Amino acid sequence: MEKIIDKHTQVNSGKKPIKENGFFTFLVESLKGISQIIFIENTITGLLILLAITISSFYLGVLALLSAMIGTFVAKIGGADEKMISQGLLGYNSVLTGLALGLFLSGPYMWIVALVGAAITAILTATMMHFIGNIGIPILTFPFIILTWFTLLASYKLKNITLSDELTPQSLANWELHIAGKINVLDGVFNGIGQIFFITNALPGILLFLGVFWASRKMGFYAIIGNIVAFIVAVALGGEHELIMYGLYSYNAILTILAVSVVFNAKENRYAPITGILAACITVPLAASVSIWLLPYGLPALTMPFVLSTWLVLGARKIMPNF
Amino acid sequence: MEKIIDKHTQVNSGKKPIKENGFFTFLVESLKGISQIIFIENTITGLLILLAITISSFYLGVLALLSAMIGTFVAKIGGADEKMISQGLLGYNSVLTGLALGLFLSGPYMWIVALVGAAITAILTATMMHFIGNIGIPILTFPFIILTWFTLLASYKLKNITLSDELTPQSLANWELHIAGKINVLDGVFNGIGQIFFITNALPGILLFLGVFWASRKMGFYAIIGNIVAFIVAVALGGEHELIMYGLYSYNAILTILAVSVVFNAKENRYAPITGILAACITVPLAASVSIWLLPYGLPALTMPFVLSTWLVLGARKIMPNF
Amino acid sequence: MEKIIDKHTQVNSGKKPIKENGFFTFLVESLKGISQIIFIENTITGLLILLAITISSFYLGVLALLSAMIGTFVAKIGGADEKMISQGLLGYNSVLTGLALGLFLSGPYMWIVALVGAAITAILTATMMHFIGNIGIPILTFPFIILTWFTLLASYKLKNITLSDELTPQSLANWELHIAGKINVLDGVFNGIGQIFFITNALPGILLFLGVFWASRKMGFYAIIGNIVAFIVAVALGGEHELIMYGLYSYNAILTILAVSVVFNAKENRYAPITGILAACITVPLAASVSIWLLPYGLPALTMPFVLSTWLVLGARKIMPNF
Repeated sequence: MEKIIDKHTQVNSGKKPIKENGFFTFLVESLKGISQIIFIENTITGLLILLAITISSFYLGVLALLSAMIGTFVAKIGGADEKMISQGLLGYNSVLTGLALGLFLSGPYMWIVALVGAAITAILTATMMHFIGNIGIPILTFPFIILTWFTLLASYKLKNITLSDELTPQSLANWELHIAGKINVLDGVFNGIGQIFFITNALPGILLFLGVFWASRKMGFYAIIGNIVAFIVAVALGGEHELIMYGLYSYNAILTILAVSVVFNAKENRYAPITGILAACITVPLAASVSIWLLPYGLPALTMPFVLSTWLVLGARKIMPNF
Repeated sequence: MEKIIDKHTQVNSGKKPIKENGFFTFLVESLKGISQIIFIENTITGLLILLAITISSFYLGVLALLSAMIGTFVAKIGGADEKMISQGLLGYNSVLTGLALGLFLSGPYMWIVALVGAAITAILTATMMHFIGNIGIPILTFPFIILTWFTLLASYKLKNITLSDELTPQSLANWELHIAGKINVLDGVFNGIGQIFFITNALPGILLFLGVFWASRKMGFYAIIGNIVAFIVAVALGGEHELIMYGLYSYNAILTILAVSVVFNAKENRYAPITGILAACITVPLAASVSIWLLPYGLPALTMPFVLSTWLVLGARKIMPNF
Repeated sequence: MEKIIDKHTQVNSGKKPIKENGFFTFLVESLKGISQIIFIENTITGLLILLAITISSFYLGVLALLSAMIGTFVAKIGGADEKMISQGLLGYNSVLTGLALGLFLSGPYMWIVALVGAAITAILTATMMHFIGNIGIPILTFPFIILTWFTLLASYKLKNITLSDELTPQSLANWELHIAGKINVLDGVFNGIGQIFFITNALPGILLFLGVFWASRKMGFYAIIGNIVAFIVAVALGGEHELIMYGLYSYNAILTILAVSVVFNAKENRYAPITGILAACITVPLAASVSIWLLPYGLPALTMPFVLSTWLVLGARKIMPNF
């Protein structure tokens, strides 16, 4: 995630940070925390993403910004490496946790739980960096996933953590598959990138693509490829049409192709585009597996298929360098 | 867990072990295996804990002592490091497994299963030391937890491993939360420390606190703080009053604050008291999460919330040294 | 798994590989991929196993050979270490995945899913080698297990991955144990080794034992010991007689005793025979635990008990060298 560098920071990096600029720097770092969700270290992209979220839902926009700030703040008082903080690498998981808890929880204490969750996510991010960094693999969005799942599970047993009524645990013995439903390709595409941030409309989707293209045309291009590939594989494997249209089979593919083909492709491997497409395809059955695995608990798959598929390929590369 | 040193052993450490003293040494090591459950290497504390367990239930007391001896014995014939054995570090997980299986199993073969379980726990302790020690994190009570869960699961499918009727697997789809019930603060406090050893009365609770204070007043003080903090958080989050009163939301907090603020605080970090309290608070929602996660299997959470919360903070410290 | 060396390869290892021999070499490597399932690097053993599978079911035989070839091919284009490929170490997990998916899936796309599964298993094998190799432990059949479980889970949610009707997810709350049923010792023994390859008759069983004895009389002897030990423990613990007779409690024991006592016994530890028998015994309750854990998903335990028991002992050996 260190590859896409915001030019403005680079220019300023020679100057000493001035006390008066403290809050501004902090805000920039928090916005980069937002853009790092899609592997980009860029303030403008962060702002465009924040705008897209805010258009979709005002309170989620506020939660996203506050969570980014809390994550960055916890990393600072914890004494984490300044460079990593300034790249937003200790904030993006907190942003996702804030958004997810804001969406899946309700009730009077929702805000407190979501923001405390964002703070603990920053700590868990450090923990995972130590555990998983040890084997030379990036943590991706794993801390956010784990923390969100644990919080949602806890809600069943603690009265003051209240679920919105979207979660429905279900015994697999009673499960029946119905895939029928209309598919609208364009909706599917804009919802795909939107679902990374839990949003589902065309206008925010366009803003998000804009944000990606602003930072890197290559990444924008791959994002579209990943989206299309996942769409085709999901239809071919017989996925539920409704889920496909809401982009629920493609957001993982977008993140995965970006990670495998662009961001963590350190040696400029010439097969990386093909490997990325392959990894994007694998996210589709993985999304199905993870959903079914979580069915008895009613938990959402979040970005776990992306994490698993990316780890699969990045790990394999160490033994099979052509991938 | 190497920090709290029994003075008597230190004094003797210059002498060569005499053959005639073999069994006495072995007994001392086994008793330290009992005291290591709460991170203490002290024969008297081990004896006080054993007394507390025996008062609560005679057969559990016998099981605890036998399990400690078996764990220590397996470590010896396995050829583990003598120093670790003499500190009780290879025995405490076996003690907990013996207690847990003695409590959750019944029937004519219970004793055999519990003691064989204690023996295998010693082997698993070594395995985990190799796996988890690699990343610079203590194994805590993880081997005991895993072995107990696996044995209880196996009981559903093997006629001669018989469950006592306490386990009730339940589909989350049929789960309903009822938190009402009386809360008695004093009971809650003594049950908290008792639950570490699966016991729930005032007198054994007092003996346990005595054991901790005997070894280290600092640890006794922290144990009380952890207990109170968990009590407050559990009430604030709306936990079931019955569970709170039985100490089921606080025993994990006690172990966690001891681990984070005292035992594994190698650099005498000055924020460690605050971090410990924070980690103790986190055990409360974690206890809820783990319980719900295990609900379909009817398994008890045991000390898993303590393990997770402590790993969270100890791992994070490597990246954020101020914690 | 490097210990049992095929003499023919050794003799040829001085010569340069000739282009014309390319396909023959590739076939030999694929057959060794089949024999490596039981830790043996031997073309004849591979052929005998393939014959045993083909007699039992023609299409499973074809799937096994194709999966072995696909696994080997993926490893080659991925650029894995030539020596590991030629030993079959990158192919045996693919063979098992092909067999398992061929058995548990049905419908028109079964062949495609099984062979794509075999290909992805080769990638996952590399990933696991990086992750688990790091801590000095062999990956065994873990990649096959994970990939098969994920694919079977995905089938619930993707219309074109069709389950054969053997999987029945079941809530543990409705579970009842009935162990009655006839036991035929001889059937149990031949089914034990057969179940490693998902087959259950006497004639293929005899061919498999032949294959093992051909490569190493010591391994053949241990295989029989493991089988008998598991049989006794399963009956003693009160396992379901039907499962015992189908060899479902013994195939894990055979693999485990071979791994612990022969294959990964690098230092020629003189207690290794006893440790191997112990590890074989432990697979029996582990098989019960894993089955119950998977019950809500209707998934088969596969060789997970073998993997867990072998990791338990091999990991413990690093701390307790006498085991």
